[in-house]
Amino acid sequence: MTFVAIVPAGGAGTRLWPLSRRSHPKFLIDMTGAGRTLIQATADRLAGLADDLIVVTGAAHAAAVADQLDLDERSLVVEPAPRGTMPAIGLVAAIVEQRYGGDAIVGSFAADHLISDTNAFDEAVRRAIAAAERDLVVTIGITPTSPDTGFGYIHQGAATEVDGVSSVSEFMEKPDLETASRYVESGEYLWNAGMFIAKTRVLLDALARFEPDLASDLRAIARSWDGPDRDSALGLWDGLKDSVIDRVIAEPLAAEGGVATVPASMGWSDIGGYLALSEHLDDPSGGISAGGTAQSIVLSDAPDSVVYVHDRPIVIHGIPGAVVVDTGDVILLTTKEASSGLGGVVSALPGDIQHLR
Amino acid sequence: MTFVAIVPAGGAGTRLWPLSRRSHPKFLIDMTGAGRTLIQATADRLAGLADDLIVVTGAAHAAAVADQLDLDERSLVVEPAPRGTMPAIGLVAAIVEQRYGGDAIVGSFAADHLISDTNAFDEAVRRAIAAAERDLVVTIGITPTSPDTGFGYIHQGAATEVDGVSSVSEFMEKPDLETASRYVESGEYLWNAGMFIAKTRVLLDALARFEPDLASDLRAIARSWDGPDRDSALGLWDGLKDSVIDRVIAEPLAAEGGVATVPASMGWSDIGGYLALSEHLDDPSGGISAGGTAQSIVLSDAPDSVVYVHDRPIVIHGIPGAVVVDTGDVILLTTKEASSGLGGVVSALPGDIQHLR
Repeated sequence: MTFVAIVPAGGAGTRLWPLSRRSHPKFLIDMTGAGRTLIQATADRLAGLADDLIVVTGAAHAAAVADQLDLDERSLVVEPAPRGTMPAIGLVAAIVEQRYGGDAIVGSFAADHLISDTNAFDEAVRRAIAAAERDLVVTIGITPTSPDTGFGYIHQGAATEVDGVSSVSEFMEKPDLETASRYVESGEYLWNAGMFIAKTRVLLDALARFEPDLASDLRAIARSWDGPDRDSALGLWDGLKDSVIDRVIAEPLAAEGGVATVPASMGWSDIGGYLALSEHLDDPSGGISAGGTAQSIVLSDAPDSVVYVHDRPIVIHGIPGAVVVDTGDVILLTTKEASSGLGGVVSALPGDIQHLR
Repeated sequence: MTFVAIVPAGGAGTRLWPLSRRSHPKFLIDMTGAGRTLIQATADRLAGLADDLIVVTGAAHAAAVADQLDLDERSLVVEPAPRGTMPAIGLVAAIVEQRYGGDAIVGSFAADHLISDTNAFDEAVRRAIAAAERDLVVTIGITPTSPDTGFGYIHQGAATEVDGVSSVSEFMEKPDLETASRYVESGEYLWNAGMFIAKTRVLLDALARFEPDLASDLRAIARSWDGPDRDSALGLWDGLKDSVIDRVIAEPLAAEGGVATVPASMGWSDIGGYLALSEHLDDPSGGISAGGTAQSIVLSDAPDSVVYVHDRPIVIHGIPGAVVVDTGDVILLTTKEASSGLGGVVSALPGDIQHLR
């Protein structure tokens, strides 16, 4: 059995600005001060599990990704333009199908998530691979720790023949708080973390049934990928519609009983903002993390603060839960409590401040 | 009549750190963004009133003071070591006595206070001079706007023959809040802002009665001041005891009926901290002041903030009354509410952070 990890790396968002920004998305950043960027930590986690790893990203960040992961050309798929997760993952799956055959298993893992319990992650991936060998499309679902309304949810169905793997009865859109609370209380729902594991043939044949033109185009590009005609084949990319794998494959295939899920508790986070980030710092009690060069941080009556220093010391007095980010070209000051509203603030910033560097 | 302004310039304190610090006290800084440092604004206020102006300061800041005010050597008295306000003001008074005679009137005005109503200041000084011509030591007292426990208070006595000038029955130490409230409600008390106006002979003869050795030493130094023996005469300075003019002259002389006061409302502040400073900024509604190079400040849900930018834009979200000071070598974050406790925090800072530059 061959298992190839696909790592989609894209999207900056605004909720972790100015650490994460268009020119410098969070997967390129050591968010927790652990010494590895998020995409490096993702590759580290997969190194012992996967026979190969392919990152799919945009032209803007291809060089930085290759540099951080020391990737060769075969391990980097550069999208000519963003078209959503379905074309990105589908193209890499088609390339893997060409290189390793239809029985090779691919698994997609976002470049910018945090997972603190790597043993639980390993175990979940191994179970997902076992289920994928039975021609299921498998998603790893996160056992919810709160009624978060920022995620889609997975409704578990009956157990499958594989230990620790359930069928998926339905994928649910992001719920309102009342619905999310009901989901969590029932014990039947998992967070959809966008991790899909399947044989290339199973994935692409499903795609061929639901979106035949897209499957045909992606397989055509893949056939030319490792030869001299890649660029001309990539001409097809321009005509692709935006689409996401959840809508195109996961939802309709689940309705047919073709999707399974592995429930897992592994300290997962998509780091949706500074509050979530603060829960994953190395020193949660002091809440201090150094993002820039080493500098002093002095906290007085400012417990549970998150501070990224750059080239000057920072003294905070009387602001509990302060969030302070000095990136050298701009300083952000907010609090954990207020940071949930940061996205709107950043979107409204003048361009010369929002898009520094 | 000759009137010479004395401007004592000393003392950094900790409550406006890091704007004000030992190497860079607040009188050398444009605290309000008005385009003039505090000592420049002090000199500006006195220019139309005084025939001459003499600054008395320590060696550390003499060059900066001379530069900011474009002073010649005759207008700058450099203390070999700090000995409190009595030796500082007394020496300059003795120098003025030598240069202009015993009927010349001196007035001392701290270098680091703010006064927003200069017309009221002018009027108060003119009244004080009129009373000083009748051989009184005159202090300008500030009509209190709150029961502030950070000031000493002046207890007014009967009216004098000079319009708008009362006798002083007693100088009161810094009171507790209950006492201060009683003072303010009675209408009989004024804040002691440390402004003293008197003939040089009256001041020094009073000193000669209360501290004969000090008066004798200061007059001896003054006699040599403008000649070749200044440095050797300054040898006397080392033996002087620390003393303040309020204790040595004002209090005992008031008990004899020799002190008068001019009550005045003139938007005075000794800028005891960031809360006081915020009330004197050019834009009190936005509360924004630029201390460094011009940079953007973005406030979102952060009304009434005080922000000093340096070389990078600052974005504040969800911290009402934020106090943010970037001096280029350190960043302070606090709030107006919390800033009253800043002095203790700064005193406890490691030396390499507290005494930057």
